[in-house]
Amino acid sequence: MKQFINSRDKLVTEAIDGLLRTSGEKLARLDGYPHIKVVIRTDWDRSKVALVSGGGSGHEPSHAGFVGQGMLTAAVCGDVFASPSVDAVLAGILAVTGKAGCLLIVKNYTGDRLNFGLAAERARAFGLKVAMVIVDDDVALPDLPQARGVAGTLFVHKIAGAMAEAGVELETITTMAQSVIKEAISIGMSLDTCTVPSSPKEDRIAPGKAELGLGIHGEAGIEQVDFSGARSAMQMVADKLLPHIGTGDHVALLNNLGSTTPLEMSILTEELARSPLGRKVKWMIGPAPLMTSLDMHGFSVSLLPVDQTRVTCLAAPVTPNAWPGLSPFGTVSIQPVPNGLTPTQPLPSSHPAHRALIESCCKALITIEADLNQLDAKSGDGDTGSTLAGAARTLLTRLDRLPLADIAQLYQAIGIELSQTMGGSSGVLLAIFFTAAGDASASGKTWIDALISGLDRVMQVGGAALGHRTMVDALAPALTTLHRGLSQAAAAARAGADATANMTRAKAGRASYLAASRLKGHNDPGAEGVARLFEHLAG
Amino acid sequence: MKQFINSRDKLVTEAIDGLLRTSGEKLARLDGYPHIKVVIRTDWDRSKVALVSGGGSGHEPSHAGFVGQGMLTAAVCGDVFASPSVDAVLAGILAVTGKAGCLLIVKNYTGDRLNFGLAAERARAFGLKVAMVIVDDDVALPDLPQARGVAGTLFVHKIAGAMAEAGVELETITTMAQSVIKEAISIGMSLDTCTVPSSPKEDRIAPGKAELGLGIHGEAGIEQVDFSGARSAMQMVADKLLPHIGTGDHVALLNNLGSTTPLEMSILTEELARSPLGRKVKWMIGPAPLMTSLDMHGFSVSLLPVDQTRVTCLAAPVTPNAWPGLSPFGTVSIQPVPNGLTPTQPLPSSHPAHRALIESCCKALITIEADLNQLDAKSGDGDTGSTLAGAARTLLTRLDRLPLADIAQLYQAIGIELSQTMGGSSGVLLAIFFTAAGDASASGKTWIDALISGLDRVMQVGGAALGHRTMVDALAPALTTLHRGLSQAAAAARAGADATANMTRAKAGRASYLAASRLKGHNDPGAEGVARLFEHLAG
Repeated sequence: MKQFINSRDKLVTEAIDGLLRTSGEKLARLDGYPHIKVVIRTDWDRSKVALVSGGGSGHEPSHAGFVGQGMLTAAVCGDVFASPSVDAVLAGILAVTGKAGCLLIVKNYTGDRLNFGLAAERARAFGLKVAMVIVDDDVALPDLPQARGVAGTLFVHKIAGAMAEAGVELETITTMAQSVIKEAISIGMSLDTCTVPSSPKEDRIAPGKAELGLGIHGEAGIEQVDFSGARSAMQMVADKLLPHIGTGDHVALLNNLGSTTPLEMSILTEELARSPLGRKVKWMIGPAPLMTSLDMHGFSVSLLPVDQTRVTCLAAPVTPNAWPGLSPFGTVSIQPVPNGLTPTQPLPSSHPAHRALIESCCKALITIEADLNQLDAKSGDGDTGSTLAGAARTLLTRLDRLPLADIAQLYQAIGIELSQTMGGSSGVLLAIFFTAAGDASASGKTWIDALISGLDRVMQVGGAALGHRTMVDALAPALTTLHRGLSQAAAAARAGADATANMTRAKAGRASYLAASRLKGHNDPGAEGVARLFEHLAG
Repeated sequence: MKQFINSRDKLVTEAIDGLLRTSGEKLARLDGYPHIKVVIRTDWDRSKVALVSGGGSGHEPSHAGFVGQGMLTAAVCGDVFASPSVDAVLAGILAVTGKAGCLLIVKNYTGDRLNFGLAAERARAFGLKVAMVIVDDDVALPDLPQARGVAGTLFVHKIAGAMAEAGVELETITTMAQSVIKEAISIGMSLDTCTVPSSPKEDRIAPGKAELGLGIHGEAGIEQVDFSGARSAMQMVADKLLPHIGTGDHVALLNNLGSTTPLEMSILTEELARSPLGRKVKWMIGPAPLMTSLDMHGFSVSLLPVDQTRVTCLAAPVTPNAWPGLSPFGTVSIQPVPNGLTPTQPLPSSHPAHRALIESCCKALITIEADLNQLDAKSGDGDTGSTLAGAARTLLTRLDRLPLADIAQLYQAIGIELSQTMGGSSGVLLAIFFTAAGDASASGKTWIDALISGLDRVMQVGGAALGHRTMVDALAPALTTLHRGLSQAAAAARAGADATANMTRAKAGRASYLAASRLKGHNDPGAEGVARLFEHLAG
């Protein structure tokens, strides 16, 4: 399995060093690699209660990512999915614990309990005040008294962290931590197993199935269930949590177990709101990766009943970026779509000369339909002629409702007609051309200069310059010559169009993806259309 | 492919609603589902320049996740990897733009350019001041003038966002945005393609290969390269960026393209520091998912030269949680491991009675080795007897260096010896037992009460209570009876050990995973060992 690591041996130590580099030296590690992997706060004077947590790695940002003001004082990191040693835990405790004492927050796994437990004893032998709480929030295994500790651990980190930061004493923090642990519940669901570095990936979950009630170390879920989408997934999670739910308002922690996309996590957020849990949940932490299981494609929901004290603690600001904050969990605010999406229809007016010109242009485009299609087929999908002719046919039917007498309004009206009837990129580009020309005309430019302004905008938006083998190569010389008359403009357009046959490296539009041999010797169909149009008008 | 979605049709709208629910009503959407998917700030009075961005979905948290004070005013979301419509963009512009005008920040894809471009024209026709910049930071395609817009877009969002928040006028913001775009460079690398919802996953990248210079829509990278780990991956990325790098200090943006684990991203951070880019980069944004490509297992690095103004803008606080902030990019702080990990050796002392008792215990444990192994083989791996006997043999060789005359020191010394010589959970538990007993003895408890305190701690840390079919079932009754003499204690231990044969549902330890039929009728080997020991001592 490919992963962005260098070796299994150095995986965790290199990752910790990477984390420290972006901490602004607010975090440090103890000099005990590879055996002792402990991340500590540097802005710490031991005057308050220290919070030490940790366990196997592979759950990032837990735990090192939550070291900082308002959360953990130290994180003791084991190898991937392996408990840290007693010595490593003891080093962490000794590094941060002052007279106020230390609370160890440990997830309920035998290795962690024992190693943190013995380290606590050793630290007490130094005369330090050390308390330890064991988090067992997982409700997947209802019959075992030894429930696992999973993402609900974050409730303890955050609430104890806020209390410690506020200077509360160890006994009170420990009591609160124990009451949080007693009431926190979690359950997870996953569509795939995780990829343990340097190990083959287990292929355990069949198509159409998901695992419910899984742990965070790749262990199998309590049951495999049929998977039919986000809604039923959240319903199953809610069914597992509801029998354990407390009274009153709750905070939910929606945890990304690894590789679930933000889109999926947001959909699960929406489904949580729509589920029977929705009315109980007044606050939300996440969705975010908080207690991951490497790259597991899954999520977990943790719930905790909250009063004002807990909400205040959960909402208190912290320095670790990985903490997503506490959000109210509420309704979807909806505002009306602004007026103006439907363009106001200008008052029609008559102007025989303008009408004749437009008719002439449209008929020219219809005439050259087959030729342009043929040319386009050499380098594209052969529809340039039909696209232009189709727009021309439609425009002919709309002449009576156009504001023919007002050139600024006329340009804008043509732009709107083209954007509504002509598909594809060319429709949008021509709409931009005429809309921008109308804008320029309204602000006083001549009808030719207004068209040049439109072309400028098309070139800016479309990214095409002269020489890019587009219609610009004919239209730009035509418009800049137009004040000298239609014949001159037609000649300039023709020269520009013919020059495209030697532009073998298209730099914009679809033809930019084609080999030179497909282009050489053929005029660009858009440029050719412009040249034919001007030649037609020039008679 | 399994994903936590309900249907492809509702994917994006449900995700937006989920996002809005956790915004504390600071975000709203326009009432135009499914066609118009626009997220806007509700705490917005149009008095400053509005920033509107967007594009296809699948890049979350871009763009809706960056709407909020100090960043975007509105995000216009298309379907997955599809540009939003002109109407949607126009709705977004009209919803947030006041007299100060609006800047559209658009990634360089034809659909986005055209649709945002035409919407800008339409908005201008309403008399609104609208500017548009096009981000093209990808250096993967050096020969195409139309470089793609990728994660460097975030530099523009953040710098323009800070300026807009500070009340800077549109022209100045636009000029700054253009200069940032000119100098921002990015390149991406991936180990796998992304999973487009409801589409089969393309299997394009062979084992041992990676794609370099990829876009964010699943399009193939410019080249497939040999992949041999994080270091060479970052080296290849650096090689692509270095020819384009500017002078002076740079900020790097390290972007998770989707499913890369936090561990991998931290290792890549470390490799960035060690690469030739390291000395140029003084600031870091991330590592974080910023401009993702669904669940792509890859990353991108974006660079921007910075002066004090840009740093100030990048560091300015914002409300969106998805923004990871600007961190100094520096060295790894290392602090010494605290003293105390190597326990101080107590002064040896002699005490014939204590010595004889310990010798007697050790010999008893050696005598029963085979019996306990045989018993353990029925429900475990048959090594309980050897584990205890091995520890006993070692302890016999250490008697001369034990502080035999001081019971508190003696307990603690035995705890240290056991933790150093006895493997497994039982070694740690017995170490906790004796260390805690030493602690209790030092604080004045009798030798028996101290052992009871040790057991309490073992039960707390190990999670075993009476009736859980562990050694506690014999040790607890033995210790609480011990003040009445060894015979009484031995009888109590025997009764407790024999009772375990009927405890068919182990609730702690390894036996908790075994079926009742494997346990029924056999004493727990740990409890049996305790009973045998006391029986031996009682003579």
